[in-house]
Amino acid sequence: MAADSPEYSIGLDLGGTNLRAAAVSRDGRMLDHVAGKTAYSAGRDAIVREMVESIVTVRDRLAATPGAGKLAGIGIGVPGFINMATGVIANSNNLASLENFPIRDVLSQQLGAPVILENDANAAALGEQWIGAGRGVADLVMLTLGTGVGGGIVAGGRILRGAQGMAGELGHITVVPNGNPCGCGNRGCVEKHASATAVTAMAKLLGLGDNLSAKEVYDLALGGNEKAKTIYASMGESLGIVLAMLINTFNYPLYLLAGGVLGAWDLFAPAMLEETRRRSFTYRATNPRIEKAQLGNEAGLYGAAYLPWV
Amino acid sequence: MAADSPEYSIGLDLGGTNLRAAAVSRDGRMLDHVAGKTAYSAGRDAIVREMVESIVTVRDRLAATPGAGKLAGIGIGVPGFINMATGVIANSNNLASLENFPIRDVLSQQLGAPVILENDANAAALGEQWIGAGRGVADLVMLTLGTGVGGGIVAGGRILRGAQGMAGELGHITVVPNGNPCGCGNRGCVEKHASATAVTAMAKLLGLGDNLSAKEVYDLALGGNEKAKTIYASMGESLGIVLAMLINTFNYPLYLLAGGVLGAWDLFAPAMLEETRRRSFTYRATNPRIEKAQLGNEAGLYGAAYLPWV
Repeated sequence: MAADSPEYSIGLDLGGTNLRAAAVSRDGRMLDHVAGKTAYSAGRDAIVREMVESIVTVRDRLAATPGAGKLAGIGIGVPGFINMATGVIANSNNLASLENFPIRDVLSQQLGAPVILENDANAAALGEQWIGAGRGVADLVMLTLGTGVGGGIVAGGRILRGAQGMAGELGHITVVPNGNPCGCGNRGCVEKHASATAVTAMAKLLGLGDNLSAKEVYDLALGGNEKAKTIYASMGESLGIVLAMLINTFNYPLYLLAGGVLGAWDLFAPAMLEETRRRSFTYRATNPRIEKAQLGNEAGLYGAAYLPWV
Repeated sequence: MAADSPEYSIGLDLGGTNLRAAAVSRDGRMLDHVAGKTAYSAGRDAIVREMVESIVTVRDRLAATPGAGKLAGIGIGVPGFINMATGVIANSNNLASLENFPIRDVLSQQLGAPVILENDANAAALGEQWIGAGRGVADLVMLTLGTGVGGGIVAGGRILRGAQGMAGELGHITVVPNGNPCGCGNRGCVEKHASATAVTAMAKLLGLGDNLSAKEVYDLALGGNEKAKTIYASMGESLGIVLAMLINTFNYPLYLLAGGVLGAWDLFAPAMLEETRRRSFTYRATNPRIEKAQLGNEAGLYGAAYLPWV
């Protein structure tokens, strides 16, 4: 069908400080894209306006492109707890002004087209499954390590969504029962022990400096600083607890890690893999792959664009 | 089809000290059953012989029953880590003599019929989904609290199996990173902190007595013993950590608890639900049901019998 009458899709990735929209072909080629800053301080209406304008810009340009075909649909990835059943962001540290606002329906009405709203980490996992490190693998779990930790589960080639579309909130799994407090109300969430923010916080606790970036702590570790090395080992152990749990739960063949902190793979991966091995009989018995994602910042954009097709 | 030509299935539940086989109709009526002791000390051949004899007994009796119909298949639930892809028990505390033995294929050959081998807790979850507390709910997770903790996940009305059929090993999820050592190689598995065995161990640690049964600790707690109450509260907290994780991961509408320790529900459930609520934003946002299973010891037998039909 796609071969007979070409079609494209538009994906939008709403990030912490910027947004990007892209038109993508059915076979995964990016045909066009626009980028913009998200002016959160300007409030909800300004964010919605910028989302609509970005999508309309791409759509108009594709409409004028010979052979681009028909718009299959619009997918949008946003950070936070998403209730897909209602099309609402239930909770988001970065987008508080959009909480409990019918964003999916408002966008759909303004664009005159169906819109699929999805958690950004779910979209990223789907993107990797489609044309990234998970190509050809129907079942996988991905953890995206950034300022927080996002999770996405792909089951049978589709995002595992659950009853209200809130499945895959893996960043809020407890790894340290009395650990660091989290905005979700829990203590010891993996995102408070294995994210860029967690690396910064541990560096401060260990007296390495205030507000060091994860990259600066990485450079210290490369230079031989023992405290900095300990921080990445601790991050690896926390990730190992979550990976062991996920492997015991799903027995999937592939677990992907993504996000900016991946650059420090060599520092945290040994502890992570050791901890996973020690904690999961199923890991030792089935030897699943634990690997880096491949699409970088583009995963969420491709995944959002793929939503109308799955 | 079933309505036109009646058929029945045979389920076998291989337990820690006994086995049971039953013939079950397509609409969930138990037509016949036999029970036996499993003479583990007699070794592997004796266990296999007893399994075969039990199934043959039921099959012969059904063959002589007018209207019982045709045998649809044979399902077998066994404790331990099961590799369904190979039909082998990879690891089992209770059935060490059966480890790494091609039990599925040997049984199938001796019975002259296809055999489906499944983890007993997975089978129990399926049984509850079919005709128990999960009737009409396609997606659920069940924890069976006995001497260990078994887990079963039903997704879209079928057992979530993963790549080798080892999914759902929820009893070995870490709830206390440096907690009690477990035979699986991990520390702090939920089954070491929230099972009948864990209750007995905690009673010993707190000086209540050696080898008290979970029921004896329960009676002490009912009588007002503060240490005994603390034990059940601690068990509830460990279960809450796992339930919060499962709810964040799956966003399913129903989570069931089963097993002998359920009798102490009133003692551990308050701490369990409080911990779940505190640790899971998704729980607070979606309010899934957390309930007791209904089929008791029969769940695994019904679930095993249901295997050939799903």
